[in-house]
Amino acid sequence: MIGRKIWAIAEGYIPSTSTGPAPEMISHETACILNTGDRDAHVTIMLYFTDREPAGPYKLTVGARRSYHLKFNDLEEPEPVPLGTPYSSTIISDLPIVVQHTRLDSRQAENALLSTIAYSQD
Amino acid sequence: MIGRKIWAIAEGYIPSTSTGPAPEMISHETACILNTGDRDAHVTIMLYFTDREPAGPYKLTVGARRSYHLKFNDLEEPEPVPLGTPYSSTIISDLPIVVQHTRLDSRQAENALLSTIAYSQD
Amino acid sequence: MIGRKIWAIAEGYIPSTSTGPAPEMISHETACILNTGDRDAHVTIMLYFTDREPAGPYKLTVGARRSYHLKFNDLEEPEPVPLGTPYSSTIISDLPIVVQHTRLDSRQAENALLSTIAYSQD
Amino acid sequence: MIGRKIWAIAEGYIPSTSTGPAPEMISHETACILNTGDRDAHVTIMLYFTDREPAGPYKLTVGARRSYHLKFNDLEEPEPVPLGTPYSSTIISDLPIVVQHTRLDSRQAENALLSTIAYSQD
Repeated sequence: MIGRKIWAIAEGYIPSTSTGPAPEMISHETACILNTGDRDAHVTIMLYFTDREPAGPYKLTVGARRSYHLKFNDLEEPEPVPLGTPYSSTIISDLPIVVQHTRLDSRQAENALLSTIAYSQD
Repeated sequence: MIGRKIWAIAEGYIPSTSTGPAPEMISHETACILNTGDRDAHVTIMLYFTDREPAGPYKLTVGARRSYHLKFNDLEEPEPVPLGTPYSSTIISDLPIVVQHTRLDSRQAENALLSTIAYSQD
Repeated sequence: MIGRKIWAIAEGYIPSTSTGPAPEMISHETACILNTGDRDAHVTIMLYFTDREPAGPYKLTVGARRSYHLKFNDLEEPEPVPLGTPYSSTIISDLPIVVQHTRLDSRQAENALLSTIAYSQD
Repeated sequence: MIGRKIWAIAEGYIPSTSTGPAPEMISHETACILNTGDRDAHVTIMLYFTDREPAGPYKLTVGARRSYHLKFNDLEEPEPVPLGTPYSSTIISDLPIVVQHTRLDSRQAENALLSTIAYSQD
C-alpha cells in the first residue's frame, strides 16, 4: 500500500486572470491524487479561508490503479473556489493515496509554475 | 489533529525589485499556515541570517479552522525583513499547523514562482 | 544507507509543445534518482493514468554512487509516455535511493520550472 | 534541536548560460542550510554524477543560529561543479540542520525558479 490517508496543502490561490489559449493556459491549481491500490479510494476535500468558515465537503472517487488530476477550478458542489482568494485545503481518503499540489499562473505573458508533494500523516 | 508544531524554511530571499502592478506583482515571500483545529493557534516566527543574530520573535494568531497567508514583506515588529538578503525562518506553534513556503519573483518582466511544503518535526 | 525503496510522484504531464533550441529546451519531465550506496540499484517504474490500466514495468539500473536523471520523455519499453496527458508514477527500488521530480515547460517563449522531492515510505 | 543530520538532493543542474545582470541573474543552484542550534555545525557535501565517481568532500561550517545559502556555483575545493551537467548531492552534518534546494534558470530572457525542501533522515 503506497501513500497515506491524511493530506494537507497550506498554499492555495487561483489567479483571477490568464493569458494564452484556453483551456491549457488558464491559471489553475491542481491536487494530483494517485491511488495505486486495488480498490477505489473515497476522498473528501475541505477548503479553509482567511476570514470565513471552511467550505465543503467536496466528495470524489479515485479509481483503483488510477491517477486523478483534480482542478480546484472545477469544484462546484457545494460551492466553487473563489478566484484571487487565499485558501488552504485538506484531502482525506479512506485508503492510502499520494497528493501533489501544482499551480500554473498565467497572469503575465509567460506562465509560471510551482509544485510540491503535499503534507501527509498517518 | 492535522499538522505539526515545529516548522522550518531554510530558503528565504525577497527580491528587492519588482515588475508589474502592485500589490499582486510585487516580489514577495509567504508562509502559508493552515490551522484545521477548533482552537486558535499561537505562532512564533524567528528569522535567521548569514552574519547577524536572529530577528524576532514575531507573534501571530491563526484562528481555528482558518488559513493564514503570511507575507514576510509585511512583518514589522520587532523589525522588517530586509530585501535582497538571504535568510531562513522557523515557525513554532502551540497547536498543530501545516506550513508551505512560496516566493513570487517579479524582478524580470514575467514572474517566476517557487513553493514547497516546509520541513516539519514533532 | 541514504534513502528509501518506495517512491511516488502524483503529478505528471509532459507538455506536447515546446519553444527554443532542442534538446535542452524541449518540454520534459524527469525523475532524478540518487544511489549513494556501494551496489547497483534495480529500479522499476509504473505509470498511472486517468482512464486506463497502468503502463509498465519500466526497468532501469542506477549504478553504485551514481546520479541518474531519468527523462520520462525517453521511456520506450513497454510503451512511450503520451504527451499532453495527465499521469502519475511510482519508482520502486531494491536498495535505498532518493527521487526528485522536475518539469521544464517551454510551451511559451520563456520556460517555467517546477520541482519537488517525491513522496517516500519504508 | 530543529532538523536532521542527513540530507540529499537528487536533482542538480547548473545551466551553462545566463541572461540578465550579474551576479543576481546568473543561472545558479543553492542549498540553503539553517542551523538553529547554539553550536557551529560542520557540514560535508558530496556530489554524484552519471558516469564518474563522486566529487568531494566539500567542507563548510554553518555558524550557530545562522543561515547559510550555499551556491553550488561557488564550490572550488576539491573541484568546481561542472556546468550543464546532471548531478545529485548529499549534505551531512554533525548537528541537526535544515536544507532546501533552489535553482534560478536564466537561460532565457525571463528567469524560472524551482525549490524543494531536501530529503532528510535520521
